[in-house]
Amino acid sequence: VVNELFPKIAVLSVGNELLCGEVVDTNASHIEATLFDHGFRVGETRSVGDDRDAIAEALAALAARSDAVIVTGGLGPTEDDVTAAAAADACGTRVILNPEALAHLAEFARRLKRELHPENERQALLPEGATLFDNPLGTACGFTLRLDEATLYFLPGVPYEMERMLEESVLPSLVRRYGHRGAMPRTTLKLFGLPEADCGALLKELPLPPEVELAYCVRFPELHLILRAPAGCLDTLKRGAALVRERVGKHLFAEDGETMDAVVAALLLKNKATLSLAESCTGGMIAARITSRAGSSAYFLEGAVTYSNHAKSRLLQVPAKLIEAKGAVSAEVACAMASGSRRLSGSTVAVSVTGIAGPDGGSAEKPVGTVFIGLADASRCEAKKCLFPGDRERVRQLTAFTALDLLRSHLISR
Amino acid sequence: VVNELFPKIAVLSVGNELLCGEVVDTNASHIEATLFDHGFRVGETRSVGDDRDAIAEALAALAARSDAVIVTGGLGPTEDDVTAAAAADACGTRVILNPEALAHLAEFARRLKRELHPENERQALLPEGATLFDNPLGTACGFTLRLDEATLYFLPGVPYEMERMLEESVLPSLVRRYGHRGAMPRTTLKLFGLPEADCGALLKELPLPPEVELAYCVRFPELHLILRAPAGCLDTLKRGAALVRERVGKHLFAEDGETMDAVVAALLLKNKATLSLAESCTGGMIAARITSRAGSSAYFLEGAVTYSNHAKSRLLQVPAKLIEAKGAVSAEVACAMASGSRRLSGSTVAVSVTGIAGPDGGSAEKPVGTVFIGLADASRCEAKKCLFPGDRERVRQLTAFTALDLLRSHLISR
Repeated sequence: VVNELFPKIAVLSVGNELLCGEVVDTNASHIEATLFDHGFRVGETRSVGDDRDAIAEALAALAARSDAVIVTGGLGPTEDDVTAAAAADACGTRVILNPEALAHLAEFARRLKRELHPENERQALLPEGATLFDNPLGTACGFTLRLDEATLYFLPGVPYEMERMLEESVLPSLVRRYGHRGAMPRTTLKLFGLPEADCGALLKELPLPPEVELAYCVRFPELHLILRAPAGCLDTLKRGAALVRERVGKHLFAEDGETMDAVVAALLLKNKATLSLAESCTGGMIAARITSRAGSSAYFLEGAVTYSNHAKSRLLQVPAKLIEAKGAVSAEVACAMASGSRRLSGSTVAVSVTGIAGPDGGSAEKPVGTVFIGLADASRCEAKKCLFPGDRERVRQLTAFTALDLLRSHLISR
Repeated sequence: VVNELFPKIAVLSVGNELLCGEVVDTNASHIEATLFDHGFRVGETRSVGDDRDAIAEALAALAARSDAVIVTGGLGPTEDDVTAAAAADACGTRVILNPEALAHLAEFARRLKRELHPENERQALLPEGATLFDNPLGTACGFTLRLDEATLYFLPGVPYEMERMLEESVLPSLVRRYGHRGAMPRTTLKLFGLPEADCGALLKELPLPPEVELAYCVRFPELHLILRAPAGCLDTLKRGAALVRERVGKHLFAEDGETMDAVVAALLLKNKATLSLAESCTGGMIAARITSRAGSSAYFLEGAVTYSNHAKSRLLQVPAKLIEAKGAVSAEVACAMASGSRRLSGSTVAVSVTGIAGPDGGSAEKPVGTVFIGLADASRCEAKKCLFPGDRERVRQLTAFTALDLLRSHLISR
């Protein structure tokens, strides 16, 4: 897969927690994605534990067949952090107290008005000959070393710090060394409500340009179609994407970096609409998503998480008699929740959900996964009945996503 | 690190999306964790793209130095799924239409009352000589093949399906082949509010038994201490854990599989207390966490997501004059929110948050990250002022976690 003209880049993730499955290695995929977006491809990824010999051995093996090795983890202040020592071993040198790293530690402690622990000073013990680069967000400095023909880049494992240093130091260094790369054009079409096999059938006969590669990626509850083309073929990619877009129609809710939350937010702003929410089985998940965006107070007024029947009556003025007659999980109560939320908050549009997320509470008539989603605007209130498969978490996620998708359709058609 | 007496196990993750960073490889870490808990250790993990030659080459390389290779991904219904063909290549055989796999597909379609697409039938094209195992949750069958001295296990990449098949088929097969392993005893102590270096300093002189290995793992906003000991040293591990537990004191909020949410839920049940919430800057995140647990309706009554001032007054009876005089982000308003929530919902205890998550809305007096957390019970209402670092998402996460931790402390001391 790796074009021989590209520099060979490997990623090594260090940490016992990675090999025991205690932590998911998000660093490797972040590095791959960032490099890919700049036209570099990672050819190999590896994980090793916090073992000085194992790290040194992996460094030597990867350096022997790579132009660059990006290493994350094991630069922290505690005794299980041995990456610097292993790097020194691999390069046939030793660790010394690095004055520049020590100054960084002192400055960091000063800024946070904290004392410098002797533990932190361990972080200034770096291989002789290392070239430092800055970590603006944490105590561990990054550094580079040469080994055989390869450049080794060492970064801390804390994602927040690693990501910043990758962007500000590693990437510019790769560009200096290998030049600006024409990134491979790529676009992602994000679908909802269309199973993978159905989508495959739908797109089977599509006359995609032969340069365009189409990949399917299930990211529950979304289905992503990833289209790629060789560098320089952006127009061809666009032509291919237009064909796919036309075929999948309303199932397409977002593209590339866009998310469902962002699309809904943009539509609310465009419509100068305000939103209120009334959630039962999702318990605030929809409100949490809406408010995760900066500036959401411009369109989001309030949410009610009405778990108890008392709360449905008190916060949303759902008549207790209606709940008694129809059940809390019913189209009528979903409508009354949305209407009540809209009327009382003064919002333009209100969305409600009430359902049985399980594992208990199901019945023959209303099995686990039965959910009603209500939507009220100035002219009407409608409720949609859904039956979602899966466990509690999946039912809740499908409910929240379907509610946002209904809101999206409603705002588009206004 | 890998004991030579253990079978050598490698994990191979297949998918273009893995090497482009579009997806984080959670499958590898899930496999590592599950195997570790049963006394097996994964020695090596690799990722390759959806490339028939690359997969075949990786299979051959890993089979040559492993007893078992667990492969995930590339068994789907679309044309970019080529793992079965690559497996056949590596084993010097060919794919044939497997009648057992075809029957599984037909049965699956029947159960979901769906048509069988020709795309799905591709999933029955499996290497000649493959031994199938069941996928109760999806269309792709799992299968095993022998290559050199190694057993290759093939699983679909959908985590939900993969995890079930690992548990029900792969693990029993490993146990049959290599016997029940004495799992290495391990315990995780989960801390909050103690930075890693401070924790390192605190535990530095601790007389831990030499068999006990201590690792630090930052899982924002939590700090996990992972203690391990060799098989058979469970009592030694327990002694070590007791020493650590005593030293870290109130920072310890949960152990092993426990989560903050579960601990709070158990304390509410134990106290026969009910909870209501009033959230501003967290926008429903706390309620979503609380209700993620089955049975939460036993202790959770309602939540109000009061973004606008109107909502604070309407849903929580916070006096508009108080908001005007003190500002929506103030100790007084936090207290009024909690008291109002408790009084109106009839809950035993109410928690409120109001703050500036950013990036806008900060001032010299109340910079971004300023948050007040209120807690009201029958006898009093108190508000704690916090200043959290980081971006909007981190401020929101720290706020939600701190609120739950305050509730935990309150319930313990009752």
